[in-house]
Amino acid sequence: MKRGFASDNNSGIHPEILAALSAANEGHAVGYGGDQLTGMAVDRFRKEFGDETDVYFVFNGTGANVLALSTLTHSFHSVICSETAHIQVDECGAPEKFTGSKLLPVETNRGKITPQGIAKYLHGFDFEHHSQPKVISISQVTELGTVYSIDEIKAITSLAHQYGLFVHMDGARLANAAVALDLPFRAFTVDAGIDVLSFGGTKNGMMQGEAVLFFNPELSKNAKYIRKQSMQLYSKMRFVSAQFLAYFSNELWKRNASHSNRMARLLEQEIRRIPAIQLTQEVEANGVFAIVPPEIIPRLQEKYFFYLWDEHRSEVRWMTSFDTREEDIYNFTALIKSMV
Amino acid sequence: MKRGFASDNNSGIHPEILAALSAANEGHAVGYGGDQLTGMAVDRFRKEFGDETDVYFVFNGTGANVLALSTLTHSFHSVICSETAHIQVDECGAPEKFTGSKLLPVETNRGKITPQGIAKYLHGFDFEHHSQPKVISISQVTELGTVYSIDEIKAITSLAHQYGLFVHMDGARLANAAVALDLPFRAFTVDAGIDVLSFGGTKNGMMQGEAVLFFNPELSKNAKYIRKQSMQLYSKMRFVSAQFLAYFSNELWKRNASHSNRMARLLEQEIRRIPAIQLTQEVEANGVFAIVPPEIIPRLQEKYFFYLWDEHRSEVRWMTSFDTREEDIYNFTALIKSMV
Amino acid sequence: MKRGFASDNNSGIHPEILAALSAANEGHAVGYGGDQLTGMAVDRFRKEFGDETDVYFVFNGTGANVLALSTLTHSFHSVICSETAHIQVDECGAPEKFTGSKLLPVETNRGKITPQGIAKYLHGFDFEHHSQPKVISISQVTELGTVYSIDEIKAITSLAHQYGLFVHMDGARLANAAVALDLPFRAFTVDAGIDVLSFGGTKNGMMQGEAVLFFNPELSKNAKYIRKQSMQLYSKMRFVSAQFLAYFSNELWKRNASHSNRMARLLEQEIRRIPAIQLTQEVEANGVFAIVPPEIIPRLQEKYFFYLWDEHRSEVRWMTSFDTREEDIYNFTALIKSMV
Amino acid sequence: MKRGFASDNNSGIHPEILAALSAANEGHAVGYGGDQLTGMAVDRFRKEFGDETDVYFVFNGTGANVLALSTLTHSFHSVICSETAHIQVDECGAPEKFTGSKLLPVETNRGKITPQGIAKYLHGFDFEHHSQPKVISISQVTELGTVYSIDEIKAITSLAHQYGLFVHMDGARLANAAVALDLPFRAFTVDAGIDVLSFGGTKNGMMQGEAVLFFNPELSKNAKYIRKQSMQLYSKMRFVSAQFLAYFSNELWKRNASHSNRMARLLEQEIRRIPAIQLTQEVEANGVFAIVPPEIIPRLQEKYFFYLWDEHRSEVRWMTSFDTREEDIYNFTALIKSMV
Repeated sequence: MKRGFASDNNSGIHPEILAALSAANEGHAVGYGGDQLTGMAVDRFRKEFGDETDVYFVFNGTGANVLALSTLTHSFHSVICSETAHIQVDECGAPEKFTGSKLLPVETNRGKITPQGIAKYLHGFDFEHHSQPKVISISQVTELGTVYSIDEIKAITSLAHQYGLFVHMDGARLANAAVALDLPFRAFTVDAGIDVLSFGGTKNGMMQGEAVLFFNPELSKNAKYIRKQSMQLYSKMRFVSAQFLAYFSNELWKRNASHSNRMARLLEQEIRRIPAIQLTQEVEANGVFAIVPPEIIPRLQEKYFFYLWDEHRSEVRWMTSFDTREEDIYNFTALIKSMV
Repeated sequence: MKRGFASDNNSGIHPEILAALSAANEGHAVGYGGDQLTGMAVDRFRKEFGDETDVYFVFNGTGANVLALSTLTHSFHSVICSETAHIQVDECGAPEKFTGSKLLPVETNRGKITPQGIAKYLHGFDFEHHSQPKVISISQVTELGTVYSIDEIKAITSLAHQYGLFVHMDGARLANAAVALDLPFRAFTVDAGIDVLSFGGTKNGMMQGEAVLFFNPELSKNAKYIRKQSMQLYSKMRFVSAQFLAYFSNELWKRNASHSNRMARLLEQEIRRIPAIQLTQEVEANGVFAIVPPEIIPRLQEKYFFYLWDEHRSEVRWMTSFDTREEDIYNFTALIKSMV
Repeated sequence: MKRGFASDNNSGIHPEILAALSAANEGHAVGYGGDQLTGMAVDRFRKEFGDETDVYFVFNGTGANVLALSTLTHSFHSVICSETAHIQVDECGAPEKFTGSKLLPVETNRGKITPQGIAKYLHGFDFEHHSQPKVISISQVTELGTVYSIDEIKAITSLAHQYGLFVHMDGARLANAAVALDLPFRAFTVDAGIDVLSFGGTKNGMMQGEAVLFFNPELSKNAKYIRKQSMQLYSKMRFVSAQFLAYFSNELWKRNASHSNRMARLLEQEIRRIPAIQLTQEVEANGVFAIVPPEIIPRLQEKYFFYLWDEHRSEVRWMTSFDTREEDIYNFTALIKSMV
Repeated sequence: MKRGFASDNNSGIHPEILAALSAANEGHAVGYGGDQLTGMAVDRFRKEFGDETDVYFVFNGTGANVLALSTLTHSFHSVICSETAHIQVDECGAPEKFTGSKLLPVETNRGKITPQGIAKYLHGFDFEHHSQPKVISISQVTELGTVYSIDEIKAITSLAHQYGLFVHMDGARLANAAVALDLPFRAFTVDAGIDVLSFGGTKNGMMQGEAVLFFNPELSKNAKYIRKQSMQLYSKMRFVSAQFLAYFSNELWKRNASHSNRMARLLEQEIRRIPAIQLTQEVEANGVFAIVPPEIIPRLQEKYFFYLWDEHRSEVRWMTSFDTREEDIYNFTALIKSMV
């Protein structure tokens, strides 16, 4: 069966997660989150992020981001984000459609936005002709595989709070960031001033499931209605809660992300030995970006899944995941060597 | 562990579905529906509903209904439905929010709407002050547990088409209807003039998964974008496709729904022996509605999950499911007898 | 030139209003409401409705209602209104489109809704599956030409406030109601518990202009952004403010509405003399509803503008306005007499 | 009374327009556009732009733009525009709110966008994760006072049509562009490939009124419903139609715009004599942009209305209008000279 580096969601379900699904499949349970497992999973998140944390499980990353942004905005607000942000580029306009707000793209420095980049949008406050800036959204890990340091995050959250804005973090690959930074989740989220977090599970071994975490209960007071209205409320919620419980059990999240990040570094190391291939981003988590001779791309794709990232530059993206094997990388890079 | 009759989504995952999830968990697969299992599952739906059918898997019933209605409407349209319809009463306004359209509630006859009830809204065409009627939406099984006959459906679809309207069917419990009518799915959907169908799996033994079926390719030309924008696109789609393949395999859907409907009839039969309880709806599928002395309701709920349907009438709803056991019903009705 | 009874907006501009437009056309003035006349007009409204009143001028009645409802709701809320309400029947779904909220129609008693009718929607609070009731909207004068008494309004506002709902009044014909009740505006609006008011000018002699009045400053804190985003912000605002100043000057509003209501009563009186015509509503303001033999309707419409209200009943609506003349009514009713 | 250069909408109503309002104020007229004057005004537009043109009058510029974009888009589309576009910067997010679409800002060359700038967004077609590019919107005159040449427009429209996109022109100051180019309206709109045009009147001597012109009837088939639902339908429409008839009568539009443009050139000429002031944009229509010593700005604003355009650069915007007088300019520039 073909394997590849297309996305960390091309991998399957980690066996411990699957086992948890089976174990949860006993008897009846109240739907929509009133079950025992959901209560336990919420408590588990609070242990990680603090007792004040309000937790909402949703279906997918776009749903998480839209729920987060919807709770923070009126339609006359604007959301400042990277020009490469998932909410800007990969969600088919779901944030605008559902929030009615304007998204304001900022040029990036290796996928990361900076206070300098943000500053150009921090004007027009109180001026009714102007969408009112209300949220800064950053992705951790970024869409270019880089990772914000605590200081970089704090620079953004303190700027935001000074102007009365909230900061949302899209943490679709939060576990990879935690491993890269070698920090507990809360150190670079709630403790660094993040207000609302999209916490991803699907890309790191879960079958499916994301969580939206509010670190200020005032912000989540309408979240349950917005989750339902945005079509993100599970009926048999115990089956996502069971996955999250397994995800935290024995630090499965860390084992998976550590492996995934390590495989990316291995891929980086092997690629550096091929002079015809040029790495384009720092490899800080589980993504490797590189410029590849265009003629070999389709031939490689016959054997391995992966995506062209920027057609004009002949740049590709290779993602590793919890189930990437060392041999996958050696075989893949050997194939590249045989072609260049 | 407490069992009950609260909803068919309080049941778990049928073992054959769970086994299919495990079996699908091999190696890598392209995300978002480009995998082999999704291709097979779509083909399976086409075998059932006709080769023209266009199939979109989504997360939940509200997502299915909203995707269906969004493809059929502009925001200046209106959707005619039962005053008890899930889209009117149980989706926290998701249809209005996402489509921008007006919902027009029709009084029901035992949960079903009729051409006579619909007629009052069929006016104001071409009049720009008036939301333009564009869709009639009916639920099969209805929210009151009743089932439309083919003739009842055809009366509605022919009226609709005469006025240029589409007909959407919310089939969250379609399998229960098929069993109740003893008909193949297509006989009372595409062959009876239904244009778009929400096909439910979650309430009949799946872990999670619904499908939107378009019987006219013209109607689905934007569906893939709307699904993504409405936050209903699975990344690891193979895991819902595997469930649907198992659902159709050896007619699991029919085995489950037949059992569930039979359990409802058994419950009805036992309840009829208790003069203090008054049945309020025909039992045609897997729901039983009854007026119960208000003083015993909380006491019953200590032992069994179920919902109060209409507080003012002291009317409750009891749902059976694929995993309801005969002893559940005997024990439950014995408990009622002991209380009245 | 053909005259008629189609709508009070078929009339032109009252000469005093037109003169005020001319007088305001001097030199430069800051746009968007920063001019002197707008300040004066706002003060004039505050004199009428109380110093706490926050005032926003908009283009038309639909714009006024949508601004009012948008400030009061989130998209997961619902708005309870009459099944004949302008927001339900005559705004092409603008309220749903812009607020995302659900409208819940109540059957009417002569155009008016009652606490009994409203009560059926006052449930499901805190239940996330259910659109949360948040606003009751009533029309004064109603779309059937009837007028709520102070007691009827207070019964609704006290019910609403008891459940935490707001009450919006659509006062497109508020002046006609004030004259009918022989009360100052504030007696049956702010003093009767109304929270937000759409105050109409266009139907009573203005060229164009409506105002949204908030009686609680907390409710209007986002109104300026919503007005702009809902495309209701005048650039040359002095010209609507000048109209409102003239409207209040020497009680023009009262002179116009008194005349209009008197003409309706005259029409009613003349119609009562024609046994073939059956009045269907109390004539309390400036609308007369009657069942007319269907064969004479098109012949009458050749000479006079008016609308068929209910085709099935052969019911027509005749509206009088500030410029209706006694001779219009005598000629019109003479023509009817000659036909029946 | 203070005069100024704040905006062309700080001017009043041209006397010929006001006279037309008075003249239209005779007797009754059917509302909502069914009157004779509206028919005449529509014909007048068709004479100017071609018989195929479909014409919709609206209240204001934001309303015109939103109606135009709403007819051209689904919510999963995107709209490419200048980063300085009115729809991007000055409409409080109305386009996103009402269309649900994403706006994609392009860097400008003196306010104008180019095929090179647009190209970066022309990808991701058919890819459901990506908002689908559907409209390019350009402003003529631009928000920086510059004017697109016919060739510049054709370069954009031919690129757009090659990719299946539509081109919308925001012509809030279209008359100033026509005068600057010395061309009839149609030469640089419909004949240059523009699909939909917002045609402005308010900024050039009308009291209030804009028109949306569709040059392809297929595009306007839903426009009447969208206009109503977007709260842009006049009830007493004769009074906007009368204004447009006067606007075209004896080329009032051209007399006004010629004067206004001439005044801008005079202002430019006088400013060039003041070395301390640095002009920042070409003066091609009726706007003059300049960097002014920051300490004199507030002192100037005590005597004359005008806006700071870019606080960081100390750049101001001065707009002339049909009623700007030569002495206004001489007095204003004399005052500046006395201060620097």
